Amino acid sequence: MSEIPYKIYLSENEIPTAWYNVRADMKNKPAPLLNPGTGEPLKTEDLYPIFCEELCKQEMNNTDKWIDIPGEIVDFYKMYRPSPLVRAYCLEKALGTPAHIYYKFEGNNTSGSHKLNSAIAQAYYAKKQGLKGVTTETGAGQWGTALSMSTAYFGLDCQVYMVKVSYEQKPFRREVMRTYGATVTPSPSMTTNVGRKINEEFPGTDGSLGCAISEAVEAATSQEGYRYVLGSVLSQVLLHQSVIGLEAKAALDKYGIKADMIIGCAGGGSNLGGLIAPFVGEMLRGEADYEIIAVEPASCPSLTRGSYVYDFCDTGRVCPLAKMYTLGSDFMPAPNHAGGLRYHGMSSIVSQLYDDGYIKARSVKQTDVFAAAEQFARVEGILPAPESSHAIRVAIDEALKCKETGEAKNIVFGLTGTGYFDLVAYQKYNDGVMDDYIPTDDDIAASLAKCPKLG
Amino acid sequence: MSEIPYKIYLSENEIPTAWYNVRADMKNKPAPLLNPGTGEPLKTEDLYPIFCEELCKQEMNNTDKWIDIPGEIVDFYKMYRPSPLVRAYCLEKALGTPAHIYYKFEGNNTSGSHKLNSAIAQAYYAKKQGLKGVTTETGAGQWGTALSMSTAYFGLDCQVYMVKVSYEQKPFRREVMRTYGATVTPSPSMTTNVGRKINEEFPGTDGSLGCAISEAVEAATSQEGYRYVLGSVLSQVLLHQSVIGLEAKAALDKYGIKADMIIGCAGGGSNLGGLIAPFVGEMLRGEADYEIIAVEPASCPSLTRGSYVYDFCDTGRVCPLAKMYTLGSDFMPAPNHAGGLRYHGMSSIVSQLYDDGYIKARSVKQTDVFAAAEQFARVEGILPAPESSHAIRVAIDEALKCKETGEAKNIVFGLTGTGYFDLVAYQKYNDGVMDDYIPTDDDIAASLAKCPKLG
Repeated sequence: MSEIPYKIYLSENEIPTAWYNVRADMKNKPAPLLNPGTGEPLKTEDLYPIFCEELCKQEMNNTDKWIDIPGEIVDFYKMYRPSPLVRAYCLEKALGTPAHIYYKFEGNNTSGSHKLNSAIAQAYYAKKQGLKGVTTETGAGQWGTALSMSTAYFGLDCQVYMVKVSYEQKPFRREVMRTYGATVTPSPSMTTNVGRKINEEFPGTDGSLGCAISEAVEAATSQEGYRYVLGSVLSQVLLHQSVIGLEAKAALDKYGIKADMIIGCAGGGSNLGGLIAPFVGEMLRGEADYEIIAVEPASCPSLTRGSYVYDFCDTGRVCPLAKMYTLGSDFMPAPNHAGGLRYHGMSSIVSQLYDDGYIKARSVKQTDVFAAAEQFARVEGILPAPESSHAIRVAIDEALKCKETGEAKNIVFGLTGTGYFDLVAYQKYNDGVMDDYIPTDDDIAASLAKCPKLG
Repeated sequence: MSEIPYKIYLSENEIPTAWYNVRADMKNKPAPLLNPGTGEPLKTEDLYPIFCEELCKQEMNNTDKWIDIPGEIVDFYKMYRPSPLVRAYCLEKALGTPAHIYYKFEGNNTSGSHKLNSAIAQAYYAKKQGLKGVTTETGAGQWGTALSMSTAYFGLDCQVYMVKVSYEQKPFRREVMRTYGATVTPSPSMTTNVGRKINEEFPGTDGSLGCAISEAVEAATSQEGYRYVLGSVLSQVLLHQSVIGLEAKAALDKYGIKADMIIGCAGGGSNLGGLIAPFVGEMLRGEADYEIIAVEPASCPSLTRGSYVYDFCDTGRVCPLAKMYTLGSDFMPAPNHAGGLRYHGMSSIVSQLYDDGYIKARSVKQTDVFAAAEQFARVEGILPAPESSHAIRVAIDEALKCKETGEAKNIVFGLTGTGYFDLVAYQKYNDGVMDDYIPTDDDIAASLAKCPKLG
């Protein structure tokens, strides 16, 4: 038995006290956000009506390498961090691979994912600004849960617009949010202008994330003392998520382990961007080299099949324009896609790093993803989230390649969360009725054609 | 800020390597199991057709103080143990209490509870005996999940009889078990004689735990290479669960903390018995004193309102008779009881310790339990299982008493698991439609009257 433990835990005083802002080390900065009306680059203060001021500053900050984490946030982190870096001894044995596999496990908290790292930060700055509350949208409810836990902690009001079909079909996440005191409204609702309009135009609609975003933004801007918050894509979110990578790197360093390969699932990019931040920082500064792989679903392949252009961040087209790898804001993965990571675009930081060649991308089919999830669950004892299982799939594939070549690579992947609220998807897989969908080139070209002609 | 961290983690090499058998230190041993046919005390070998031989020996072992934990089990424990002993700083602050509150958190694993500690041991001994598989029953599915994780790890077959109403209304736990490769059969089924008989007598029945036990026992004894396993009540289970208390005590000792009060929820007694084992051991040996409180639901109050007599362990009356605090094997808590801990009797070890005055008992109403659960979740960031929340309720009550008296007591309680699969109950509470049920004296007298006249 190796001297490396199953779980490498840092001590509480090793929790990072500053977030790492990878943009400071990027020669090619992410392209600026543009005003959707004028096409002009946005100034920090242009964002103040939507987001907290401190978060607007973080969103626009391309220069400061380290941003202090306020003590109140560190205290909250202490309730569930440092998260363990786990050596997957049992998976290695089951695969018969010489590779050493490690995963940074972010699921040991009630939100069940890494989303809490940014939710608590956003709630803190809202509280500090003296706001009454925040609004947001949620699909399956992972982000909404993390946010409601954070607002409960700081005594803020929390208004969540939940896509109606999820509200009705996934009542459990809704009840977690309610237990944490959040108001959860099925979207489209009759509480906003945009919601009423959509209900009128499309009676009986199931709702969409795009509509829920529009309602949440309207609710934030039309109520005194409220702002809107978002759980992925934004640069501020990737900044907060850098705690994942900083802890992972500290844990590896503690045992003198040099990662060869770092693998993360990629939807909007919050987990991947956070996990790889300090590693890609070393690459940007020419200090080290890593093979970094972003894994996305074949049904929503923004990096592998999208275009790097300016696009709308929301289907309602009320948010700023961002330059990113995108499938077009109208793109919707097929309804049978159960594996998460459904966002049409990719964080501008991850997009730029990918365009500059620091990150590779791979797309995987969802039945292959669930096969990896099941294999992992049975030997490692954790039922993984479908999203996280994209990374597991590629980690297993790479470990099996090592078995062929005899290489003892150090493979690190991000296990972003648990699948306890995704059992409808697991049931489909267990029943053998899950299928795969891959969009045609024509599908993607059609939605890309609707991107604004800019940049 | 105190120097005691939020989470006291032991290192992996501090995981106990032997279970502590509290019976060795008890002057008054638990009363022996009796043959349900003859009323004679059972011999170890009488149990061999039902349980693995090694487990039968552990069941009957009243003398060996320490029983080595096999290395394979310790390796599995390393995947999710040591579990943290958490200082509830945020709860203390919210309550404004001078008390110091600690909880031993057993929910950070996919089974979501402490049940895994015994499930992996029972699966190990089944594997070691060369068995093909094991059978068991499960209600809501917590034990079945823990067992299916354990059998998947050792490559054993796992057949779970799940109470039909839970099978249909709680499909998610079922899907976790299936993902781990278990066969889950709604009970009563047509696969056993007893199941067919019950289906014939009561067409359309929803099933009961008693019936599921009978089916699982029949399935075990009628198939070559199978044995039956059980997740609570048995002395072997309490033995395995002593890892909870041993770790908790080691963590407290590491910081020189002397617990004043130890609180655990009590259904069959597996968590409580495990948590208190080393502490009550000190009491039995006259080395220290603690106030130990067993908390049970007012709707199923075996310790506070039951009798200490020999009773049937299952409603099907096929299992050995045990002397225990019981409400009678026909006793069923009202259907509106959502808070778990539904078993009619109490582990014979806990029963004897209670009868000898080492343990106090308190019963609490379920709406008070869910109020405590919500308060805890909002400040400590963990959505607790309803079962665990019984202990939270009393811990909060005791901390509030300290606020009145100014005493800085060290309160330790067991947080046995998470409530991610209990959101139907939380929804009832959130919707204000949860009510309380307290059985009448006549209800209890009527079911107690059916106990066998023995002992």
